[in-house]
Amino acid sequence: MAHTIIFQPDGARAQCADGDTLLTVSGGAGIELETPCGGAGNCGKCLVRVENQAMSAITEPERESLSTEEIAMGFRLACQCRAHGDMTVFIPETSRQSRQIIVSDGRAVSGRLKPGLACLILKLDKPSLNDPRDDWQRLSEALAARDFYNIKIDYTALRQLPGALRAGAWTISVVLWQAREIIAVFPGEKEKIYGAAIDIGTTTLAGFLGDLTAGEIVAQAAAANSQVRFGDDVISRVSHCMMEDDGLERLNRAIIGDVNQLLERMRAKAGVDKGDVLDMTVVFNTVMHHIFLGIRPDWLGRAPFTAAVRGPLNIKARDVGLALATGAYLHCLPIEAGFVGADNVAVLLTQRAAIDDEQTTLVIDIGTNGEINLIGNGRVLAASCATGPAFEGAQIKHGMRAAPGAIEHLTIDPEQFAVTLATIGRENGVKARGICGSGIIDAVAELRKVGLLLADGRFNKEIDCPRLRLDEKGKYEFVLVWATESATGHDIALTQKDIRAIQLAKAALYAGARLLLRRMKRETIDRVILAGAFGSYIRVESALAIGLFPDCPVEQVEVVGNAAGVGARIALFDVDMRREAARLAAMAEFVETATDPDFQNAFASAMYFPPWPEAGAARGIL
Amino acid sequence: MAHTIIFQPDGARAQCADGDTLLTVSGGAGIELETPCGGAGNCGKCLVRVENQAMSAITEPERESLSTEEIAMGFRLACQCRAHGDMTVFIPETSRQSRQIIVSDGRAVSGRLKPGLACLILKLDKPSLNDPRDDWQRLSEALAARDFYNIKIDYTALRQLPGALRAGAWTISVVLWQAREIIAVFPGEKEKIYGAAIDIGTTTLAGFLGDLTAGEIVAQAAAANSQVRFGDDVISRVSHCMMEDDGLERLNRAIIGDVNQLLERMRAKAGVDKGDVLDMTVVFNTVMHHIFLGIRPDWLGRAPFTAAVRGPLNIKARDVGLALATGAYLHCLPIEAGFVGADNVAVLLTQRAAIDDEQTTLVIDIGTNGEINLIGNGRVLAASCATGPAFEGAQIKHGMRAAPGAIEHLTIDPEQFAVTLATIGRENGVKARGICGSGIIDAVAELRKVGLLLADGRFNKEIDCPRLRLDEKGKYEFVLVWATESATGHDIALTQKDIRAIQLAKAALYAGARLLLRRMKRETIDRVILAGAFGSYIRVESALAIGLFPDCPVEQVEVVGNAAGVGARIALFDVDMRREAARLAAMAEFVETATDPDFQNAFASAMYFPPWPEAGAARGIL
Repeated sequence: MAHTIIFQPDGARAQCADGDTLLTVSGGAGIELETPCGGAGNCGKCLVRVENQAMSAITEPERESLSTEEIAMGFRLACQCRAHGDMTVFIPETSRQSRQIIVSDGRAVSGRLKPGLACLILKLDKPSLNDPRDDWQRLSEALAARDFYNIKIDYTALRQLPGALRAGAWTISVVLWQAREIIAVFPGEKEKIYGAAIDIGTTTLAGFLGDLTAGEIVAQAAAANSQVRFGDDVISRVSHCMMEDDGLERLNRAIIGDVNQLLERMRAKAGVDKGDVLDMTVVFNTVMHHIFLGIRPDWLGRAPFTAAVRGPLNIKARDVGLALATGAYLHCLPIEAGFVGADNVAVLLTQRAAIDDEQTTLVIDIGTNGEINLIGNGRVLAASCATGPAFEGAQIKHGMRAAPGAIEHLTIDPEQFAVTLATIGRENGVKARGICGSGIIDAVAELRKVGLLLADGRFNKEIDCPRLRLDEKGKYEFVLVWATESATGHDIALTQKDIRAIQLAKAALYAGARLLLRRMKRETIDRVILAGAFGSYIRVESALAIGLFPDCPVEQVEVVGNAAGVGARIALFDVDMRREAARLAAMAEFVETATDPDFQNAFASAMYFPPWPEAGAARGIL
Repeated sequence: MAHTIIFQPDGARAQCADGDTLLTVSGGAGIELETPCGGAGNCGKCLVRVENQAMSAITEPERESLSTEEIAMGFRLACQCRAHGDMTVFIPETSRQSRQIIVSDGRAVSGRLKPGLACLILKLDKPSLNDPRDDWQRLSEALAARDFYNIKIDYTALRQLPGALRAGAWTISVVLWQAREIIAVFPGEKEKIYGAAIDIGTTTLAGFLGDLTAGEIVAQAAAANSQVRFGDDVISRVSHCMMEDDGLERLNRAIIGDVNQLLERMRAKAGVDKGDVLDMTVVFNTVMHHIFLGIRPDWLGRAPFTAAVRGPLNIKARDVGLALATGAYLHCLPIEAGFVGADNVAVLLTQRAAIDDEQTTLVIDIGTNGEINLIGNGRVLAASCATGPAFEGAQIKHGMRAAPGAIEHLTIDPEQFAVTLATIGRENGVKARGICGSGIIDAVAELRKVGLLLADGRFNKEIDCPRLRLDEKGKYEFVLVWATESATGHDIALTQKDIRAIQLAKAALYAGARLLLRRMKRETIDRVILAGAFGSYIRVESALAIGLFPDCPVEQVEVVGNAAGVGARIALFDVDMRREAARLAAMAEFVETATDPDFQNAFASAMYFPPWPEAGAARGIL
């Protein structure tokens, strides 16, 4: 029994089976709803309004998320409400997932060109009745004459060999992988070969297509990770794999499809054939790594957090289902430990000079998790800090990801408490509809600066400010944007609960960094590297003001953008850097934070915000 | 514009596009017609009778094959006649392809059990926060403790690893391929692993499923090579690959499908899971080798007859599309040279003891081609003799393959010239409808014996015998079966042209053997090994009587059946025999017959039949 669902105001129609959730149906109609909890019913973000009663009853999660008034008005959670007849569904703007802004480039890092592939052009003798060698023997002997011994040939390349030799009149180009195996053959003289470097984030993907002959990037592209529909964070994804029979398969297909689309877009931009893309490096966090490779991630999420494999991997791209040349290998950079993934190793690759330095450098990659490395004195210490997704706007009442309509920066006037906003897309007249990570950090820092927020994280009720008010539950909140100025027609506020979430997140990072310092037997951090998409937008002064990491001179804090992608590119162009990445991953000493008493103590005190404005003045930033 | 074709007497119906040949349409309806020429219109075997005129005009090949009377009666060749409307098509029994009898077993050969796989059972420590090694590192270190270092793991096995370790409570069975790579993992203690040995002939396939733990065959099966519909011999198959855009792909799909069905049937018989079939050896002639591997065979068919690859190959079975365990390798035995294929190497493997003998042994594998080896004195000489397909019943007026209704043996009474037949299926009342290779050799030998055939191959017109008569074209023929006794209602006869075809075929074999003797500087052959399905049915006395090979005492002629299949099994159970096969293939000295003047001379004189009955009497066989 199929039902017809009409989505308004889009007017999109979709057919569905009896009992399908509106979340499933809307996805099928091309409408992406906000689902940070992965459809578990916990986040309350996929709010929709329905017009008739041909649907399932209100669920327990809905009772917790929705007010009685909202229920009376026909509001439901799309992930909970199942269709039992034709329906019309209104989707509020706040429930929609916006197209995200993705940082696909990091700082340029100069590197060597020493690819893992060599393209050799060989001229062979024609066979005759007196020289009855087979094609492969003929080629092997020509390779041996060039000092390449015991070379293997990929089966798919072998299949192409007879045709290529004759089409090229016995001149052939062979692509040799790591001086061990021929992975492709081309008739005549091949001029260009290509490779790809891909950074697979929990939320976004960044890709680079490189000319391995000239050593330059010829195309780049970014895309959303379409696994987002199964949950915003890695924990939701792991849960999905564990709970659903074909969960892993679906997640795997989603990400492989994303990467293939990314590759296709880049190839189209640069006019490169699939068969000419002969190498690929890929970096990701540990959960993305496992899912991308079709390996069950079930045991990554619970103690002792054991990975299936951490070392670097060379796998035939065809075995993973990737649309590269048929004989091409994929190189997965190694994982450090637990949640500290290959993306982190790639970031380290860009900072490798600092490892042998006497200074300490704290490398923070704030994605959906908070992975940190403290490097220096020939050591690499790694920790994973349970920051939660607050910095990505999740678990924040009006939080959202860095997308049009997100407040990315703000200042608060110390006299009148007027709020000046910088909203993503403001140049196109986009009004605020929420606040993203960098905006939240600004907001907390500014509230501290104007005295509205106490060191322990409570609002300062002593100050008379109309924006500071009690919400319906009797808790304080600070109104950032009044309803008349917002895109949603509602006030956008930062609540006491939001402040707590930020405190927990920043305390985890801070305490993690402190613990690493202690393990390295050092007192201070000399340099901080902020990597990741979120890192690119963060205002360093605000980060220092809220105590995101231990004190460090502001001029020693460097924002490097998508350094993981840069690391993947370095490893694409320079095969020695793959070995270097393996060395870095192996030397990394993983420090378990959760069970460490030092961490627990540091965490409790790190909940407090640093003194303000004195501390800020002392650091020369006021 | 679709047409409906009804096939009688079956009553089968098929839809076809305008212009489809009746051969194509009948195949689609599940009716297999005889097509030794591969549908080129040369053999005249796919005779059908059509009822209306909604079809294409008579073609030139049809004018050559059909009499005016046949054309008037509505007879057409199915490969030439194209449908241009609804039609009813009568298919005579003689045009149908019968289900063949296939020899799937050779003489038992005792061998060692030393498989290429080892199944190791390992008990690993459970991971803990203090032992955070990843699963693969844990397994690698356990292997190293058993002295297996630098072991790789197949990607598909790696994917199974985390689940298998936990399902088996940290006891795991790993299947190690050639002490180099883990190709499969199983939870707990695995008791049995299996492998398959497959002999792919141009016409038939034979398969064996072996228990690699106990060293015994647990199932065997045989099947027709469904490439037969693209032509009976390797040359037709090569032509198909060269002429049709997707020719190679279709032939490849056909044979891979056949092998997968064979594997499935054997697994079903023995109750073995697909994932437990972890090794496979395969032997074939050179053309089947290339097509099976999806390699263009185009250049095998013309000078200088260059193969793409001759050496032994280990290829992931999944890359070839075979339904084995996902990580399993396929081992292709090496090719000797040109048309002397891996099947021949497998036969040599069964005769390897004779190589270092001082005696000379002639190994004949008469399939669709005549491959011969002369071995002894530490040498292996190989030649390919253009026998043509006469021994398989093709190019013979009433020739057919060894199938029910085929005369497989006969004797002729020297007084009355009465013919006593042994027909395949006679125990079930099947009447003769043609004659297969062993019957043809008997017929020629018997005609010589009773004096009806002269040494130069002409019929002896001096003898008054009602069975010796002139055909419609004024040529002599000998009636083997009168119409009243045949299944077809027509006389079955051996024509002067048939005798010529046999003379050419046997002369090619004989002259080839002579050439090899000369190259080995020996005068006589001490021993003859007759291999292959055809070899199993041949009557040795008749073979000697027609001079199929140089003189050899009858008791020194051994019939070994499907020795190629035996060789494949030896290589399955004993990995050292794979190296031995490579050694044999490499030491084989290929002797080119076609261009050799010695061969030409020997060939001309070998056209004559040996003296009879004196020669026979001298050999003690009369």
